[in-house]
Amino acid sequence: MIETEARKKAATRTARLDAVFAALADPTRRAIIERLSRSEARVTEIAEPFQMSLNAVSKHIRVLEASGVVERHRKGRDHILSINTGSLDEVDGWIERMRHFWDARLDAMERLLVELKQDPKSSHKDRKHGSR
Amino acid sequence: MIETEARKKAATRTARLDAVFAALADPTRRAIIERLSRSEARVTEIAEPFQMSLNAVSKHIRVLEASGVVERHRKGRDHILSINTGSLDEVDGWIERMRHFWDARLDAMERLLVELKQDPKSSHKDRKHGSR
Repeated sequence: MIETEARKKAATRTARLDAVFAALADPTRRAIIERLSRSEARVTEIAEPFQMSLNAVSKHIRVLEASGVVERHRKGRDHILSINTGSLDEVDGWIERMRHFWDARLDAMERLLVELKQDPKSSHKDRKHGSR
Repeated sequence: MIETEARKKAATRTARLDAVFAALADPTRRAIIERLSRSEARVTEIAEPFQMSLNAVSKHIRVLEASGVVERHRKGRDHILSINTGSLDEVDGWIERMRHFWDARLDAMERLLVELKQDPKSSHKDRKHGSR
């Protein structure tokens, strides 16, 4: 039971990562996020700078809402969009984890290079040279 | 001329961001990156843990190569894949920039809340109460 719960959670997290990365893989959607990062806005305000139909912009907004990056609430007759500031945490965490691995490997390579520099003979032990 | 160059550069950066985010939007591709983060590997080694054909895994690897996240070099007859450790820099930079905006807005909201707490009357100046 607990295992099933854990697996369900992992599946949800995977689906969320998929959705957020896919949402960010489009320049219009990234521009909408940048716009909303400055302040919340109405759908029509967001659409204004783009040379595309309101319908096309709305489609992008729906992808952003489905991914959880953008939220919508109503103020009277207006639909107001805003950023869900916690939504990039998982994506950020994933990139952070990869970097951690890479840094560890780069550090190890650096140590190896320093060692080789201090004792260059150790790098070609089995080569015989200058003894002819 | 310079302007054209700048525009070209921005277009390339945008295309790169699109490609990297799209590459990361798949659980198999993220698992391949995690595997390669530990050490470089042959295509067959990478394919092993996945329950899909070598051909299907190869397709994912090609997407990763096209995005610049994964690199390929030959060692004799083997194709060795490794991580391009600089490839997430731009993606990281973009997320960092968004966070910066959000943090600034959250800080401003926090200041406002502190002010309201210190002087609660200022929040409802025009309400008359307790003076009947």
